[in-house]
Amino acid sequence: MLESLRAEVLEANLELVRRGLVVYTFGNASAVSREQGLCVIKPSGVPYEKMTPADMVITDLHGKIIEGTLRPSSDLATHVALYRAFPTIGGVVHTHSRHATAWAQAQREIPCFGTTHADYFHGPIPLTPALTRDEIEGEYEANTGTAIIRRMEGLDPLACPACLVAGHAPFCWGKTVTDAAHMAVIVEEIAAMAWQTVTINPNAAAIAEPLRDKHHFRKHGPDAYYGQK
Amino acid sequence: MLESLRAEVLEANLELVRRGLVVYTFGNASAVSREQGLCVIKPSGVPYEKMTPADMVITDLHGKIIEGTLRPSSDLATHVALYRAFPTIGGVVHTHSRHATAWAQAQREIPCFGTTHADYFHGPIPLTPALTRDEIEGEYEANTGTAIIRRMEGLDPLACPACLVAGHAPFCWGKTVTDAAHMAVIVEEIAAMAWQTVTINPNAAAIAEPLRDKHHFRKHGPDAYYGQK
Amino acid sequence: MLESLRAEVLEANLELVRRGLVVYTFGNASAVSREQGLCVIKPSGVPYEKMTPADMVITDLHGKIIEGTLRPSSDLATHVALYRAFPTIGGVVHTHSRHATAWAQAQREIPCFGTTHADYFHGPIPLTPALTRDEIEGEYEANTGTAIIRRMEGLDPLACPACLVAGHAPFCWGKTVTDAAHMAVIVEEIAAMAWQTVTINPNAAAIAEPLRDKHHFRKHGPDAYYGQK
Amino acid sequence: MLESLRAEVLEANLELVRRGLVVYTFGNASAVSREQGLCVIKPSGVPYEKMTPADMVITDLHGKIIEGTLRPSSDLATHVALYRAFPTIGGVVHTHSRHATAWAQAQREIPCFGTTHADYFHGPIPLTPALTRDEIEGEYEANTGTAIIRRMEGLDPLACPACLVAGHAPFCWGKTVTDAAHMAVIVEEIAAMAWQTVTINPNAAAIAEPLRDKHHFRKHGPDAYYGQK
Repeated sequence: MLESLRAEVLEANLELVRRGLVVYTFGNASAVSREQGLCVIKPSGVPYEKMTPADMVITDLHGKIIEGTLRPSSDLATHVALYRAFPTIGGVVHTHSRHATAWAQAQREIPCFGTTHADYFHGPIPLTPALTRDEIEGEYEANTGTAIIRRMEGLDPLACPACLVAGHAPFCWGKTVTDAAHMAVIVEEIAAMAWQTVTINPNAAAIAEPLRDKHHFRKHGPDAYYGQK
Repeated sequence: MLESLRAEVLEANLELVRRGLVVYTFGNASAVSREQGLCVIKPSGVPYEKMTPADMVITDLHGKIIEGTLRPSSDLATHVALYRAFPTIGGVVHTHSRHATAWAQAQREIPCFGTTHADYFHGPIPLTPALTRDEIEGEYEANTGTAIIRRMEGLDPLACPACLVAGHAPFCWGKTVTDAAHMAVIVEEIAAMAWQTVTINPNAAAIAEPLRDKHHFRKHGPDAYYGQK
Repeated sequence: MLESLRAEVLEANLELVRRGLVVYTFGNASAVSREQGLCVIKPSGVPYEKMTPADMVITDLHGKIIEGTLRPSSDLATHVALYRAFPTIGGVVHTHSRHATAWAQAQREIPCFGTTHADYFHGPIPLTPALTRDEIEGEYEANTGTAIIRRMEGLDPLACPACLVAGHAPFCWGKTVTDAAHMAVIVEEIAAMAWQTVTINPNAAAIAEPLRDKHHFRKHGPDAYYGQK
Repeated sequence: MLESLRAEVLEANLELVRRGLVVYTFGNASAVSREQGLCVIKPSGVPYEKMTPADMVITDLHGKIIEGTLRPSSDLATHVALYRAFPTIGGVVHTHSRHATAWAQAQREIPCFGTTHADYFHGPIPLTPALTRDEIEGEYEANTGTAIIRRMEGLDPLACPACLVAGHAPFCWGKTVTDAAHMAVIVEEIAAMAWQTVTINPNAAAIAEPLRDKHHFRKHGPDAYYGQK
């Protein structure tokens, strides 16, 4: 069932390892099959070096396990909440990558300091408010999804493909899980640059809108001219 | 004698090398056999690449050498003090890993800035006071252990599996030496994130208690649901 | 056509990968054949691991494609502007390398804090002003070149072989594309050192002119005595 | 001539490469034969990957070439000045390693913030004053040596085995060139930790003298008990 999607989800998880975004069993990646209304997600707490496509867990979009003998990632409810809310996305990646997590812990959104950022995000990388006690003690992982979705109101998820959860870490997404893992790497790089930017110049400001728009739309949308046709 | 524990201690020491936590002969890991009341510890100042299980030194829990031709790690007296004081632990690891050591040198405990930290520690990573002249000039390594043990009063060593020694570096522990080495890697990652957090936002605050508790207890204790059963 | 130059351009691009200056398809290197008035440049958005010399795109010095089936780097117009303005250079490299980009984002030129810097630059690494809305919405990449050229007025491009573009990233150059890639690595190292310098001492000052001159001219110009004859 | 010393000098130079302390042809290591009054030093500007023992240059202790077809390192005059002044040392290493160079550029000595530092230095890592115009425009490299020697007055070179040159970078030494290269790695690690220490706590203070003495003398001198006999 969903053989190729299982393989792609595994591969996206392994990309996080290769790029140094995860320590031990940190991190999780999933994909959605829109046709079948199913989510394919990494199992919880299994060492990456032993993971096979058969270890991926298949659930419906409310997190009910459909196939798989292992427990799914403990963040499953966040993943499926994002799939339900953002119909254009096909993959979600969550990491505690060092630099992006530092911004989440500092409880600051990442300003659009440069064109590297604008190439991927049409504005800052947003930050949720801290979850309330009720949200934490209730359906925590689902409520994390809700906090992200609320923060993303009015934003196009493909023009703003990540959100920091306050005091926690980033969630990233994309059209596919491969894109979502790619985005997790980019978010980490943007976060690293932004950290150094504010330590060099604590008053550093976001770039002007025309420069942000220029870079964003030369890579995205109908007038894009970056890359091959 | 204690063949498999020797091998596990060596392996934990080598994990420190693989993860970039030690330079040259820095660092030491040990395990305890509670049944036999013996400690197995790395020899002092021997290059990691040449170390074999047979080089491990076996001592009693007061640091008296029982088996081994090499000198034990010079921090032996700290290790055995911890074993005597914390009956639930089975391994101790000491490193001068870069980020954690910087916090020890800055003489600040590491606040619980995020869920990565809360996943492992139910509160800040504590810091001992500076040792007094008498403690330093007396049984220094044993007194280092005493300083840690005193600072840990009222804390469960398995819910707070590391302590920074002021002006020195971290000591980490766990149920096994494998867990202790794992913890040394995690502490280094937490310290790196916390460093970046305070440079992004000097007023960064610890996360609220409900979030700390949620993350800690989803991985630890009777209601844990992270990982496989 | 231009077989050996194609190979050298590919190799310079791969040097950026080996040295960790580029993430995914970031970055681009080009060379100029002054005899033939042609530019050889990396294609846009093609993965480095699949790139061959035949994928390089050949254009004239106004960016018109002469040979090649792939789209050239989207920054082509900046490259050819630099070749037209600086007749002594033979290669251009553009990266979003982490440390140098942080300075561009902080919108600060990099002061000549030490001899490592002076070995390569006879003064600070300059920074362009931010481009105006008209410059951005017009021929953006060509205008980026113009901004660099204007900033470089009065400077010898071989004594100041890089310029930061405000809110964007560095452009580097040299007598050959191999030298330009080498310079991109050096600029990244200088930027990293300078970042740490200002975080250790926010009032750090540039070194005195005699020291700057001594180091610069022991490696460059008629009295150089560094390296082999 | 001096076959084994040539090999040891080459190996020390390569250790700098393996440990990430040098970029391209940066850095240089030398050894002295006290019996023969000769210095063996790396050639200037030769790529490390092509270097052989036969490429090492042999000079007398005033820098006169005795054997070798290549130019010696341009810093030769600093090396031989140190050999003449410090009779107990057998090797000198100069790098522009990132973290140590940042301190030299920030023109701050490195305080003894912790036991990692005290294990190797019995006090701060000193910093020379900036060289005067006359010193720079005269015999620059020899005067760099003189500045270090003057700064080291009253210090035992083996209890203080490195010095930062203001606006430049560290020089390190030891009983052998192997020890000097080892020290260059340690100095870089100490500098990195100290940088992070001051960014975590700008008011961080040196450790108390008893702790400094304890760590220093448990590794050095007649009462040392670190390592194997």
